[in-house]
Amino acid sequence: VCVCVLHFSECADLMTAGSRRCIVVSTLAEACFYADHGFDDIIYAYSLPFDKIERCAALSEKLDLFQVLLDHHDALQQLKRRPLKDGQLWHVWLKLDCGNGRAGVLHSEPEALSLARAIAGTEGVELTGIYAHCGNTYSCTGVEQIQAVAQDTTSCVLQFMEKLKAVGITCKSSIGSTPSCSHPVQDMSKLSEVHPGNYIFYDVQQSMIGSCSLEDVAVRVLTRVIGHCPQKDQLLIDCGWSAISLDGAGKLPTGYAIIEGHPDLKLSSMTQEHGRLEPISGHLDYSKYPLGTLLSLIPHHSCATAMMHPVYHVHSKGRLLGTWNPTRGW
Amino acid sequence: VCVCVLHFSECADLMTAGSRRCIVVSTLAEACFYADHGFDDIIYAYSLPFDKIERCAALSEKLDLFQVLLDHHDALQQLKRRPLKDGQLWHVWLKLDCGNGRAGVLHSEPEALSLARAIAGTEGVELTGIYAHCGNTYSCTGVEQIQAVAQDTTSCVLQFMEKLKAVGITCKSSIGSTPSCSHPVQDMSKLSEVHPGNYIFYDVQQSMIGSCSLEDVAVRVLTRVIGHCPQKDQLLIDCGWSAISLDGAGKLPTGYAIIEGHPDLKLSSMTQEHGRLEPISGHLDYSKYPLGTLLSLIPHHSCATAMMHPVYHVHSKGRLLGTWNPTRGW
Repeated sequence: VCVCVLHFSECADLMTAGSRRCIVVSTLAEACFYADHGFDDIIYAYSLPFDKIERCAALSEKLDLFQVLLDHHDALQQLKRRPLKDGQLWHVWLKLDCGNGRAGVLHSEPEALSLARAIAGTEGVELTGIYAHCGNTYSCTGVEQIQAVAQDTTSCVLQFMEKLKAVGITCKSSIGSTPSCSHPVQDMSKLSEVHPGNYIFYDVQQSMIGSCSLEDVAVRVLTRVIGHCPQKDQLLIDCGWSAISLDGAGKLPTGYAIIEGHPDLKLSSMTQEHGRLEPISGHLDYSKYPLGTLLSLIPHHSCATAMMHPVYHVHSKGRLLGTWNPTRGW
Repeated sequence: VCVCVLHFSECADLMTAGSRRCIVVSTLAEACFYADHGFDDIIYAYSLPFDKIERCAALSEKLDLFQVLLDHHDALQQLKRRPLKDGQLWHVWLKLDCGNGRAGVLHSEPEALSLARAIAGTEGVELTGIYAHCGNTYSCTGVEQIQAVAQDTTSCVLQFMEKLKAVGITCKSSIGSTPSCSHPVQDMSKLSEVHPGNYIFYDVQQSMIGSCSLEDVAVRVLTRVIGHCPQKDQLLIDCGWSAISLDGAGKLPTGYAIIEGHPDLKLSSMTQEHGRLEPISGHLDYSKYPLGTLLSLIPHHSCATAMMHPVYHVHSKGRLLGTWNPTRGW
């Protein structure tokens, strides 16, 4: 389970059904946070930053299973230079680039196989698995396109596993991204595991990609009308980029967010603490929006919005069930 | 002194030379934070949100001088409905719009004078001052343009003060914005005070507007090279939008930031934890950037960048002097 956008242990408890195992994080701060809250079997799914080797070593020595990810020979050298105590092994995933083009060693390059063999052959290090992040699903629209990328990534990984097998290496395999794991293809069952991303929150972006419907989105930012600007046919709200983020660059038909129940309104611009709402067509009826009116915004990207808040209020059927406090930093 | 972008008491101590008085904030969370740290004489420079009246009343009753700001008759009604105990007065600034076009009542509208008179004439409420935020300086380039806006805003406010005087009302006057207060015009000395904004940090945006030189910018984000992508002629760094923000929309010639000492590099795109550096022209020499290389980014907008970090490291002449912990929320 990928908890990298969530940053709080109550939610990770839900996602792991209380087992507190098998989680994926993207910052070491999260790894430490979860380790301190009794979680174990954590993958730090981020190309090993060299300045964090010592902290990774400490987690590896403390936890039952702490796993790192790398995509370069130099990173392997760093691990060799810091052997773990009592003969413990560094658990290493090799990051493969199967077309996403961000991090990872290209699956088609001979380099990929040679790095996998080097990891497997290094004393004090174990090749735990092969991982590919198919973030290229983010440019998809619709299930068909998502599944084409998911199939392509899965096939690349499975072919790579065959190459490994041919040189006598066996290990786990995994792919991940919110869209691909929302619409898995059959072949994904041949992988050891998947990393399903942000399925617990979703957002407008995921609904537009086709990962979910808008009804599946579980995050809102509440805001109030704090000003009337009839000269500009605008409402001023107390939600700026410090509350919802600049993610999406305001390119939704409704600007930086969807205003729930008001498809005619657009969040057209923001400063730090202020947002401006405009009618998409026609003119505003100010009598419908007295100062103090509460509005509910559905964020373009819930990870970016969640980053901006020190606390989340959890509710169900109109009842407040509790608050979640995210962790921050790296 | 405007501390609204800073959110921590050590810095506000510096800015007020230890007096812990005369500060301006843009969220009530900051007001409470500073009040809890022994600050007094605080202006909450934000069009009064109705859901925060009770918390504002508590601060007004606790502090020597807590000041609110409003721009609408309905907000005045809210204050009337919640008289302060022991005959204490609500200290109210009227927000005037002098051409900025965000919040505030238009200086040229009869409404402005009528609202000022209503505030001054309301029992339990004192008209403390007239305030105009000249955020329209943010679209300026160069000192001349900045000063033209500063002059225009100042003139509007001073003219409004004359109108008030003619009906027997005297109170303070103020304008504020980082560019205008960085290059004040003579007439600003006729105002009671100014709110100088983000002069203690500055950023690339302010250097481009003309508020400061790039050498004046006091904020950096440190990042490391974590990947080589020769297929795309890119370096991968461990700085995504979660570390520097999406402010500026990547429109600088160098993308989302300036890479100090490397004018040939551009931060062309980011995801949550990853950034991509490209050469502005020619090809990358990867031998100059081994994995682990430390790079220093100058942010487009330091307020947006500061928002993303749970701690700031303060240094001088290569020595670490301490850490500052910002407050968050509203």
